[in-house]
Amino acid sequence: MTALPAASGTLYTLGLGPGDPELLTLKAARILRGAPVFAHFAKRGRDGHARTIAAPHLPPAAEELRFEYPYTTEIPVGDPRYAAGIAGFYEDCAGILAHRLRAGQDVALLCEGDPFFYGSSMYLFDRLRGEFRQEVVPGITAMGGCWARTQTPVVHGDDILTVLPGTLDGARMAERLRGTDAAVIMKVGRNLPKIRAALEEADLTARALYVERGTMAAERIIPLAERDDAPAPYFSLVLVPGRQRVR
Amino acid sequence: MTALPAASGTLYTLGLGPGDPELLTLKAARILRGAPVFAHFAKRGRDGHARTIAAPHLPPAAEELRFEYPYTTEIPVGDPRYAAGIAGFYEDCAGILAHRLRAGQDVALLCEGDPFFYGSSMYLFDRLRGEFRQEVVPGITAMGGCWARTQTPVVHGDDILTVLPGTLDGARMAERLRGTDAAVIMKVGRNLPKIRAALEEADLTARALYVERGTMAAERIIPLAERDDAPAPYFSLVLVPGRQRVR
Repeated sequence: MTALPAASGTLYTLGLGPGDPELLTLKAARILRGAPVFAHFAKRGRDGHARTIAAPHLPPAAEELRFEYPYTTEIPVGDPRYAAGIAGFYEDCAGILAHRLRAGQDVALLCEGDPFFYGSSMYLFDRLRGEFRQEVVPGITAMGGCWARTQTPVVHGDDILTVLPGTLDGARMAERLRGTDAAVIMKVGRNLPKIRAALEEADLTARALYVERGTMAAERIIPLAERDDAPAPYFSLVLVPGRQRVR
Repeated sequence: MTALPAASGTLYTLGLGPGDPELLTLKAARILRGAPVFAHFAKRGRDGHARTIAAPHLPPAAEELRFEYPYTTEIPVGDPRYAAGIAGFYEDCAGILAHRLRAGQDVALLCEGDPFFYGSSMYLFDRLRGEFRQEVVPGITAMGGCWARTQTPVVHGDDILTVLPGTLDGARMAERLRGTDAAVIMKVGRNLPKIRAALEEADLTARALYVERGTMAAERIIPLAERDDAPAPYFSLVLVPGRQRVR
């Protein structure tokens, strides 16, 4: 890496875990306590879990940068306007952070789950890479929080785990699920019928669990077979534990 | 679940994270502070990272149960004596915990990384399931700690992540790696030549990183191509980040 300007600030990208406010790391809590400025992504009109988890640790005088998504489901992900709009949005956010960092301020960027695991913050990290000091603090992933709550060990011994987004094409999903021992399907949303069909093809239906808001107050864990096809909230996933084998 | 005896204790299985003592959760730290008894797995003559991470949080009067593996590499994993010996060992450990729990004591079982992600503690969890109250506190996985330290986002957007143990058969490993976007290979040990060949077959060599003791003081991160074939220490993994795409 080339030398970074000594006087510029550091961007701390903090994983705040799956939802339970106690599943924050000591490191993230320490960095929050000293944060002069914090930033977070939010949906229009809502605060988001990351901010709620961080709030008790932030100094009262900390300045807030709120990055509000231009849209969430109004424009379909496949629409070219979506890609262009979201890229512009990330450019703007990175610009705002760069301005603060250049002025010598440290910034804490709050992320649900783990920043490098399907997190929006990666799009800012990538844009600021090489130009500023960045530290990434890993967080408990949504899947990690969920599998602990199901009280079902996920991968033993020689098990293979496959993690995939529910937004994948159904045939590709089934292909990847075939022959895995354990699986996690993220981004469930409106994809339940497709996910169900792919699991059936891979003969994994019997072990599949549906977990909604894992580790949060409104947590719900049921066999996938008992879940209807209505769209799932953002904080939901499908979990297929590996084969149970007592050694 | 059937009703559990009200007077019996709770087994808290605590994920203590990848090595950096600050990557412990507030929840694990709180449970450690109130633990009358703690238990941990250890290799002969060594204390293990979990105990080191937990030590500053444990009450001075906490009682220690040390579960020493009967062997580590003296008997090959494929040998029938290995399976029998290790099963007997886990039986003994579960028996010791059951005795404490039945007497009404809470016990904290310390685990490196995340308990349900290739952890030995699952073999005790499975044996005590249904008979005692158990709470599992997820921890930052070794892979989560490592990918944060590589400063390389692992899974973006629609990426697929495949996690597999280096102990797998080479052909099966190559088959699972082919077509994945990102990969993590655990249990590297003596398997580097096999892992290298499988990654080559799957055309993933160019992105593969070797991470040793990620998040710890002696951390080492290098391209896999620069690593020789000498056996890797226990705390090592191979990481293949997904394709970088700036949105």
